[in-house]
Amino acid sequence: MNYTDYFENTLRDLKDEGNYRVFADLERHRGAFPKATNRGDENREVTIWCSNDYLGMGQHPDVIAAMHDTLDQVGAGAGGTRNISGTTHQHVMLEAELADLHRKEAALLFTSGYVSNWAALGTLAAKIPDCLVLSDALNHASMIEGIRHSKAERKIWRHNDLAHLEELLAAQPLSRPKLIAFESVYSMDGDIAPIAEICDLADRYNAMTYLDEVHAVGLYGPRGGGIAEREGLMDRIDVIEGTLGKAYGVIGGYIAASSALCDFVRSFASGFIFTTALPPAVAAGANASVRHLKSSNAERRAHKDKVAEVRARLDDIGIPHITNPSHIIPVMVGDPVKCKYLSDVLMADHGIYIQPINYPTVPKGTERLRITPSPVHSAEDIDNLISALETLWAKCQLARLPLAAQ
Amino acid sequence: MNYTDYFENTLRDLKDEGNYRVFADLERHRGAFPKATNRGDENREVTIWCSNDYLGMGQHPDVIAAMHDTLDQVGAGAGGTRNISGTTHQHVMLEAELADLHRKEAALLFTSGYVSNWAALGTLAAKIPDCLVLSDALNHASMIEGIRHSKAERKIWRHNDLAHLEELLAAQPLSRPKLIAFESVYSMDGDIAPIAEICDLADRYNAMTYLDEVHAVGLYGPRGGGIAEREGLMDRIDVIEGTLGKAYGVIGGYIAASSALCDFVRSFASGFIFTTALPPAVAAGANASVRHLKSSNAERRAHKDKVAEVRARLDDIGIPHITNPSHIIPVMVGDPVKCKYLSDVLMADHGIYIQPINYPTVPKGTERLRITPSPVHSAEDIDNLISALETLWAKCQLARLPLAAQ
Repeated sequence: MNYTDYFENTLRDLKDEGNYRVFADLERHRGAFPKATNRGDENREVTIWCSNDYLGMGQHPDVIAAMHDTLDQVGAGAGGTRNISGTTHQHVMLEAELADLHRKEAALLFTSGYVSNWAALGTLAAKIPDCLVLSDALNHASMIEGIRHSKAERKIWRHNDLAHLEELLAAQPLSRPKLIAFESVYSMDGDIAPIAEICDLADRYNAMTYLDEVHAVGLYGPRGGGIAEREGLMDRIDVIEGTLGKAYGVIGGYIAASSALCDFVRSFASGFIFTTALPPAVAAGANASVRHLKSSNAERRAHKDKVAEVRARLDDIGIPHITNPSHIIPVMVGDPVKCKYLSDVLMADHGIYIQPINYPTVPKGTERLRITPSPVHSAEDIDNLISALETLWAKCQLARLPLAAQ
Repeated sequence: MNYTDYFENTLRDLKDEGNYRVFADLERHRGAFPKATNRGDENREVTIWCSNDYLGMGQHPDVIAAMHDTLDQVGAGAGGTRNISGTTHQHVMLEAELADLHRKEAALLFTSGYVSNWAALGTLAAKIPDCLVLSDALNHASMIEGIRHSKAERKIWRHNDLAHLEELLAAQPLSRPKLIAFESVYSMDGDIAPIAEICDLADRYNAMTYLDEVHAVGLYGPRGGGIAEREGLMDRIDVIEGTLGKAYGVIGGYIAASSALCDFVRSFASGFIFTTALPPAVAAGANASVRHLKSSNAERRAHKDKVAEVRARLDDIGIPHITNPSHIIPVMVGDPVKCKYLSDVLMADHGIYIQPINYPTVPKGTERLRITPSPVHSAEDIDNLISALETLWAKCQLARLPLAAQ
């Protein structure tokens, strides 16, 4: 076979169906986020409306200062895997801070949230004898890959459907090991799982619980511990998984759990063992962010207010968006080509950057503009966003029926 | 089942067989590497002899300065996946630099070398129709996991055994897609693959070549392009995979290949698509490191001299180590408990940190102390290492037959 022809033909198909991704080449400016320069488009100044740096913590002075200080104290990289000279004091301190955040005995740090899900779920489900994994239908790709990697038997329960989950649990012997894997805030629809009820089922059927809080840590709960903290449920969850790359504004992933469980994953997870540790400065920056958001509620309050304001303004002009109890505002388009067109015009005519969300990130037919307001978006930024969307919706004769009213 | 009991019992088994890992809690000191403080052991001052920061680039002023500057210019994290607002100008520039390093059309950046192997091999082998993967028996865990993830048929060829590779290739139809996956420098034994001969076989049997150069980039070749550059073979390799976390001293992984191949992996690899991009400051630091080692041979020369000196000094006192053509010096112990004991005494009595390398990093029975000299180890550091090993070998009545003489 001709390999290059194969690659090129496949890419052409992607382009034809409107699913080829073009990355915006952005240059952020410290202190000026959400503004950035689009280096790939005549250095146009743009306002970012689709970042997962939900609170702007990637620009927080404490975070930047911690990274500068650590660079000056210890240098750039960790220089090895965690086992072979790569564990630095910054990693140890961050893991202690994360364990405390979730009121767990221990935490274990990974190079990313993706790797933490893949490695932790992959290891637990593979090693626990005869483990059955019960996985929510909308779980993130990293969870799905981890479960698949484990080769454990898995059953998919319909998204947030407690009756279906119970049906699957009840069909198994009580003694069989079971792991219920789910998220708190689902990234693309912004809906939230019924955590307490899932824990009730886990208790009843002797299952472990694994909760991905990557779109919730830093954002919810009095100390930023996530939805489980807000609802007083952290002690009922066996494994809380989180990220340092979204609300905390840096990079990295982790699990918080019992000492035995963390030590078990630490000892057996290939994706943890055989990889260079995060740079100490990254760990220190993330730690500063976690610490700040443990004691400060100002960012969470401002975030909530901005999200409510953008929703209300969208409602005022009849732009359809999914009603959900979180900070994620999905404006539904339902077609990859239209979605990309809207995104392109927002960028070109209005200096507004909202990446089109197409397959495989969301199912085909549910393409959307996913808007993530942050405390650092100004009143003027919101005015510009709403006015641009109003113009575009009129120009393109798009439907104005709010999904909430359907 | 009682999950905690299961975890604790399994960990007890690990401890009983001597394979339980204890991480050294190190605090490096900028400019003073390879010295560090062992925070987990009464703040003892230690000399690190097992780092993969082979050239000390994690302390290089250009690297640190680039990270400081970028932090000041753009802030901490990337704030999103590469597709959703996370591509910054620092990523784009680094990918261009890496493509140039390997004289390829393009490069693609991942959050780690582990992820680059897992995602690139996993995607190529899964998507190329009916692909057969031919994998060297000693390939790294990340390659094995990627190949396994692809679910493609795979055949393992005996380590560096060209006749066996050819036998497996010849047994297939010429038209069948094939991917030969191998490393240049093998991390734990330090031996080097016969790259030219493997490329000859790839040509003859219409196979693609995928070469992991993580223990070679920065270290070999006139511009640090790795063993393939040194031997004038870069254009014969389809995919060169490298890391920014070892000789380059920061973190991250990449592939360099044709534009079509990189674009293909970029478009389909779950581990690339669904993960937060590296912080811009990390990309900028890595870029500074790559650029420096493209034009400076001083570090490579000094590295080679230090490695030769340590080998000669080990030979002088009859300490057995694997003779190989690379910079890695494996001192073989062959028993996990003894290996850990030697490491503990080196740390406790001599302030020398060499992590024991036990299963699963190496096969059981081949436990070793893996020594990695660097240009920043002083003459005094080498004297101390040799004198400590001499004392320990005498004390423990360990064999003094060099493996080379067997």
